Amino acid sequence: MRRVAVIGIGITKFGEHWEKGFRDLVIEAGKNALEDANVQGEEIDALFVGAMSPGLMVGQEHAAALVADYIGLNPIPATRVEGACASGGLAFRNAYMAVASGMHDIVVAGGAEKMTDLDTAQISTVLGGAGDEEWELFQGATFPAIYALMAKRHMHEYHTREEDMALVSVKNHKHASMNDYAQFQKEITVEEVLESKTVSSPLKLLDCSPITDGAAVVVLAELEKAKKYTDTLIEVIGSGQASGQIALHDRQSITQIDATRVAAEKALKQAKVTHKDIDLVEVHDCFTIAEILALEDLGFFKKGEAVKAIRENQTYYDGSLPVNTSGGLKGCGHPVGATGIKQIVEVAIQLRNQAGKRQVKNAEIGMTHNVGGSGATAVVHILKRIK
Amino acid sequence: MRRVAVIGIGITKFGEHWEKGFRDLVIEAGKNALEDANVQGEEIDALFVGAMSPGLMVGQEHAAALVADYIGLNPIPATRVEGACASGGLAFRNAYMAVASGMHDIVVAGGAEKMTDLDTAQISTVLGGAGDEEWELFQGATFPAIYALMAKRHMHEYHTREEDMALVSVKNHKHASMNDYAQFQKEITVEEVLESKTVSSPLKLLDCSPITDGAAVVVLAELEKAKKYTDTLIEVIGSGQASGQIALHDRQSITQIDATRVAAEKALKQAKVTHKDIDLVEVHDCFTIAEILALEDLGFFKKGEAVKAIRENQTYYDGSLPVNTSGGLKGCGHPVGATGIKQIVEVAIQLRNQAGKRQVKNAEIGMTHNVGGSGATAVVHILKRIK
Repeated sequence: MRRVAVIGIGITKFGEHWEKGFRDLVIEAGKNALEDANVQGEEIDALFVGAMSPGLMVGQEHAAALVADYIGLNPIPATRVEGACASGGLAFRNAYMAVASGMHDIVVAGGAEKMTDLDTAQISTVLGGAGDEEWELFQGATFPAIYALMAKRHMHEYHTREEDMALVSVKNHKHASMNDYAQFQKEITVEEVLESKTVSSPLKLLDCSPITDGAAVVVLAELEKAKKYTDTLIEVIGSGQASGQIALHDRQSITQIDATRVAAEKALKQAKVTHKDIDLVEVHDCFTIAEILALEDLGFFKKGEAVKAIRENQTYYDGSLPVNTSGGLKGCGHPVGATGIKQIVEVAIQLRNQAGKRQVKNAEIGMTHNVGGSGATAVVHILKRIK
Repeated sequence: MRRVAVIGIGITKFGEHWEKGFRDLVIEAGKNALEDANVQGEEIDALFVGAMSPGLMVGQEHAAALVADYIGLNPIPATRVEGACASGGLAFRNAYMAVASGMHDIVVAGGAEKMTDLDTAQISTVLGGAGDEEWELFQGATFPAIYALMAKRHMHEYHTREEDMALVSVKNHKHASMNDYAQFQKEITVEEVLESKTVSSPLKLLDCSPITDGAAVVVLAELEKAKKYTDTLIEVIGSGQASGQIALHDRQSITQIDATRVAAEKALKQAKVTHKDIDLVEVHDCFTIAEILALEDLGFFKKGEAVKAIRENQTYYDGSLPVNTSGGLKGCGHPVGATGIKQIVEVAIQLRNQAGKRQVKNAEIGMTHNVGGSGATAVVHILKRIK
């Protein structure tokens, strides 16, 4: 296995882009990433694009070929990968593997979604396709309902309170307010979360990540080659991917996501680091309860104990374990396929010491955690600044 | 790069499976492939699934996680790859790369599509997502119309006749009639093709591949490991993938598919073989004109000269260059994501000398050619029986 570094990052503002289509967003993020990497199109060997549902959202399948064409990369191999909300993480992992394996030297990984062309009911149905459509969606279980079940059970088993979940949202909005590319730029209070409209009890509107348009692109290169392009080397030191039961009813426990646990163990083992070495982590907070589950399943806390750290504000950018400094899915927005790549972009920004007001001090090692559906896919990466 | 062999194949009957869903088809093909390989679930390292539009066709995204779950492969990494009608070819290529690179030892590649839950108008719209939705589909250009333009121009430039295209269909139905897993079991005549209803002039109903449900799965292993599982080693000796303009209007010529040319050159170079060494080829005949284009773009014939071989019946299973002995997309059926894997299955059957009445004599080396959309993605593989 060869060593691999991230040499370029590009991202659009996340939000409601009424004037831009899927391809416009990808072109913008792609251009930014290629310029940031200072790499020419002809130097790129392959492209992986993560997108969950461009077919259902904008009528366009074959999205990777479209992207290769529109950012001028023909005839390189262009492959769309999809793992629902983990599509971006999978695109990054496949690009990483293509370089680590020696197959390619420079590979681009992008993620994008254009969601606001559909109304909320339509989007709920589309996103339901990330679960088990026969046993969940077609029976009426949309994603807020599925995560609400997980939240209820977590409250029952570990005395987690609605206020604790609200704290996650408040913290992620705070981080988002310090992040120019985030969808929400406004701080909120625990009271505002608790008083917001119930979506699926106990989850309220401000417990749920929003509908977002956006794209993010990164460029990866073999480490020695990477040195020609950048002085700040961000190495990918661990990569883990795992699968779990797609339907909630098949699981032994609905308060943990096994795929997250397995993916994290793999990534940590490869990286030869422990949880104490991680300076910041971007986790998959599609709902506030999901951030709590993630911190436990990733192994930062025992089951039921993440909430203590959250109550003590340890998960803020200046705390002992900064979580979702980008604002997370909740504050930064969640253009599904783009999210996994955005997590890499945010960690790279932090490790480059370019995060401005939300900068994590002395950040050297960061982790990303991207989940598909209610946990049938999980992808974990660990990145390290090596000079 | 390590050497890789196909050690197991499984396929469902292709056709209209009114009683079976997406997952039923995949389970059936998967079970067949694992049994054929004599491999246990716990020996498998990863899974790649090719499917074009399960979201639009059956409401299910996240298809690879679903498949891993339902064929009992959790928690291995499961990734869906999509390149429209080339999704199966991409799944195979990614599985091949995962083993060749040393990342994994045994990997499963599957392809599936459940198409008959939608009516023809709906399916046309879904399939239109394989082209450029803004510049083609939304302007009314469905796939028969796009390939009709290519056919018209080919007729103009090279004096190709409607009868020549009909010969492709007649040959592929003949092959299908000798293949138990093919959708169509009936031979047809040139007159029947010419008299069938016009879909988009000059293409008639019997020039077009049908709507099909089906799944196909193969198991790949590193060559030394493969020897433990099988005595008939089918090695993957070449793999090529390329991208081209997604919209027809952007191309210099609409009578050739550049991505096919590039992918074939790469695969042949890696395999260190020439066209003369190829004993049979499965090409992407989504329309009869596409088989003609493929034979030219793959390099078997100069532009405009494939038709001569077709008129001389050289492309039958017992001719000098057997093409689409499975029946091709036209005769065997075209469950989009399954097609690329089915091509591998057919070549493996031939190289194992198990093709019965349609057996190509002394078949040692076979090629597959899978196209996405009207040519924005092409994937070419070359397989060889090595003992």
